Amino acid sequence: MARRENRRDGGRAARHAAKAVTPDQTDPVAGGGYQPLAAPEIERIHDAALTVLEEVGMGDPTPELARLAVDAGVILGDDRRLRFPRAWVEDMVAALPKRFTLHGRVPGREIELGAGLTHFATGGTVVRMLDMETGGFRPSTLQDVYDCARVAEACENLHVFNRTVVASDITDPLTLDICTAYSLIAGTTKPIGTGFYDAAHVADGVAMFDHVLGGEGEFAKRPFSTCNCCSIVPPLKYGFENTEVAIAGARAGFPVKMVVAAQSGATAPAALAGTLVQTVAETLGGCAIVHLAKKGAPVIFANYPFVSDLRTGSFSGGGGEIAVMAAASTQIARWYGLPNATAAGMTDAKEPDAQYGWEKGVTDLATGLAGPDIIYESAGMLGSLIGCSLESLVIDNEMLGNARQCVKGIEVTDDSLSVEVIRDVCLGGPGHFLGHPQTLELMNSEYVYPVLGGRDSPDAWDQAGRPAMRARAGDRVREILASSAPLVPAKIEDEIARRFPIRRHHGERAA
Amino acid sequence: MARRENRRDGGRAARHAAKAVTPDQTDPVAGGGYQPLAAPEIERIHDAALTVLEEVGMGDPTPELARLAVDAGVILGDDRRLRFPRAWVEDMVAALPKRFTLHGRVPGREIELGAGLTHFATGGTVVRMLDMETGGFRPSTLQDVYDCARVAEACENLHVFNRTVVASDITDPLTLDICTAYSLIAGTTKPIGTGFYDAAHVADGVAMFDHVLGGEGEFAKRPFSTCNCCSIVPPLKYGFENTEVAIAGARAGFPVKMVVAAQSGATAPAALAGTLVQTVAETLGGCAIVHLAKKGAPVIFANYPFVSDLRTGSFSGGGGEIAVMAAASTQIARWYGLPNATAAGMTDAKEPDAQYGWEKGVTDLATGLAGPDIIYESAGMLGSLIGCSLESLVIDNEMLGNARQCVKGIEVTDDSLSVEVIRDVCLGGPGHFLGHPQTLELMNSEYVYPVLGGRDSPDAWDQAGRPAMRARAGDRVREILASSAPLVPAKIEDEIARRFPIRRHHGERAA
Repeated sequence: MARRENRRDGGRAARHAAKAVTPDQTDPVAGGGYQPLAAPEIERIHDAALTVLEEVGMGDPTPELARLAVDAGVILGDDRRLRFPRAWVEDMVAALPKRFTLHGRVPGREIELGAGLTHFATGGTVVRMLDMETGGFRPSTLQDVYDCARVAEACENLHVFNRTVVASDITDPLTLDICTAYSLIAGTTKPIGTGFYDAAHVADGVAMFDHVLGGEGEFAKRPFSTCNCCSIVPPLKYGFENTEVAIAGARAGFPVKMVVAAQSGATAPAALAGTLVQTVAETLGGCAIVHLAKKGAPVIFANYPFVSDLRTGSFSGGGGEIAVMAAASTQIARWYGLPNATAAGMTDAKEPDAQYGWEKGVTDLATGLAGPDIIYESAGMLGSLIGCSLESLVIDNEMLGNARQCVKGIEVTDDSLSVEVIRDVCLGGPGHFLGHPQTLELMNSEYVYPVLGGRDSPDAWDQAGRPAMRARAGDRVREILASSAPLVPAKIEDEIARRFPIRRHHGERAA
Repeated sequence: MARRENRRDGGRAARHAAKAVTPDQTDPVAGGGYQPLAAPEIERIHDAALTVLEEVGMGDPTPELARLAVDAGVILGDDRRLRFPRAWVEDMVAALPKRFTLHGRVPGREIELGAGLTHFATGGTVVRMLDMETGGFRPSTLQDVYDCARVAEACENLHVFNRTVVASDITDPLTLDICTAYSLIAGTTKPIGTGFYDAAHVADGVAMFDHVLGGEGEFAKRPFSTCNCCSIVPPLKYGFENTEVAIAGARAGFPVKMVVAAQSGATAPAALAGTLVQTVAETLGGCAIVHLAKKGAPVIFANYPFVSDLRTGSFSGGGGEIAVMAAASTQIARWYGLPNATAAGMTDAKEPDAQYGWEKGVTDLATGLAGPDIIYESAGMLGSLIGCSLESLVIDNEMLGNARQCVKGIEVTDDSLSVEVIRDVCLGGPGHFLGHPQTLELMNSEYVYPVLGGRDSPDAWDQAGRPAMRARAGDRVREILASSAPLVPAKIEDEIARRFPIRRHHGERAA
């Protein structure tokens, strides 16, 4: 329809009341309105996944995993593959914890998994940063780990900060793991996610976390970090180091994020349903590590059904195929009743352009509507999971606010149906709703307003010199970094620094 | 998880088989997997909408509409408002056509409405073009009408071409209507959508369309254009001219696109549910015009529940609120069983940046998943429905391919579950799926590949000089325009030009 450029005037009261009320942290929202699979289709995928686990099984178990599994009734074949009887898998699913808390380092930051609410998290762990100054990619560093954490701390739509980049300026694996974990803590009070290159590092990580919380055994009481484990090498094999890390992490009290990242057409079937079958089997096979290591230990069913560009075999993070598979995987995990996560918000674009926006918008929305507990990779990533960008964190935070608003849905109550409001306005009223008390009341609860995204007119945009969103995002990042204060008390940092080779991002401070 | 930059090698067969197979026109897909409203919520909104139509009613009916309505049992109050008894509205919904064909000018371009399949269409009708050369906005012209049609003709994911811009270089209203309609026909063979400024122009339009099809009465047999009517002035009033156009259009054999475009918080309640109540009432009130003018005439329930930025009262096209309302409106229209459309793919951004991408991606996907017959405004629009851009048409065409792929969903069959494929690959097979026959077979049916969007590596992107998507889009537009041939035979154009003041975009041609 034709739209006039001279917009309706009036509503002065509304404009006066309109303040940018951005909460420090948004509430999670309940998805589940989007169900790509019909119920019988879920059952067929589940049934096929159990057939795969029973007949094809999982290859290359570590000696410890094989021993634990055989003791528990799993069958180890002459081909060294673990084959899981159907009933065993079903018993395991029944036994896995259905609900647990992922704490923040401080109270008030915790999130509840298995409660049907969707949270957004960063992901990674990638090896490049899109440099704010040059606009090009460079290797990522420990400073980037810290800067990303600080920026995420200020992003109200990010509920969990998973490490985004590898500190490639640190070569010793133990130092790398400990420094990374500490820089996350130094940058954010939100629940974090990190990993360990070796199971032997897990104890050091817990010791450092105990220090942060004030004493031995405190981390087990307030586990504020997931232990990220990619224990599966698709198709259908265990990886040695990450299986050992998962066992050690579960026993040390970590909630284990059991990530499976097969790629359809390369490390999983090209048929989307087949990729779901295999990856559901693999994620269950990964959860089995935790279940066998410590019955009842919390584990996140984190299936990331990824896609290959079949012209090249390369990973692709941004198409509609990955969106619908992430949503379907979520639907299956919810059907199991397992605390779950998936990945969305990736893109193959190298800068925040239209492709970047729609690939993130489409994948984050499809997944959010399906309702996982956590959507990882939902902010900051670009270049097919090769790079991370500080500007992207704040840009994506705003995008997530839009997706979240859609997932939040529509409240239908006698009041919200507004029949009396409509009657008031139309029969003898002003003929518009701009100044109505309902409008003033709802303007901050029912709507979000962009900060980086522009809503000015084309003329105003032109007169302002056509400002680019990326420049605005850069300004916002610099503002956040300039105003961020040390989060770990100096005394605690001193104690940690005496025992561990951490980076003190603010130098030595007066305790 | 950490991703290696050295990608898996292999799959040479797949790479050889990989050709960009882009169909001339994609098939529509069946949405409906996303249902933002629970069934009782739909019923409550319906019930409230009927209360509004019965008790508040619709103001300012034209004398003819009032007479038709009163004759049919609708109540005209002393306040000149038409009040529709509940049973009357329910009988009307039952009587409205549930399925009809929107033809293309040539066979093979037709689409079926009411069949549960989702099609993408352009929209408008806006007054500015984002100029390809200057990157700034300027008034739109008849040449833009034609150029947009030609570009849309080449966009495989656009199924309907609704006029996008106003030819502001033509001032006489009749000439404007006829020239616009002809330039659409000259540019595309897809079903079109246009409008008339005055009911008296409808007969001329039909006469011109009859000429195009080869004889009097032919358009009624092959209606290839909707008659776009914004007959409602929210809240809850009829507009004079567009009511008359709707009556004339329905009687002349047009499928009437009955568009309602209220804005929450300005011309509709700020409560999202209230906006749905009012706009459902208004769209039913608009459909009543067609029903009263010619029982059984085809009408599209085209509710566009728009949003105001409550800080300014201005229209906003890109937030999560508009996405969820468009999806909910679709769900309600499907519940009525009425051929329906809504609007998505708008943005408040002024250029194809990240905001542009996510606002379009989020709104088009949410709406697509809900499954309307047509999504208007889905390509080409920017700047809060103020402007149109040729580059945006081709960029959005690619975005729609992604959204479409997600809406298409996942085929679950014995074959697609792939248990035997997984067994083959894992037990004694190569351990990857790259060269598997299933992969080669599905690579073009299960996947889409970007043409404008990049999937190259950050290094390759850097070495190529960091090419911008917008530049690639501009190249594609120039290529389309340079290769587009006249679609209307010279002899027919000659005949039409003798009777109507049309623009001959290719000058006089040899017949």
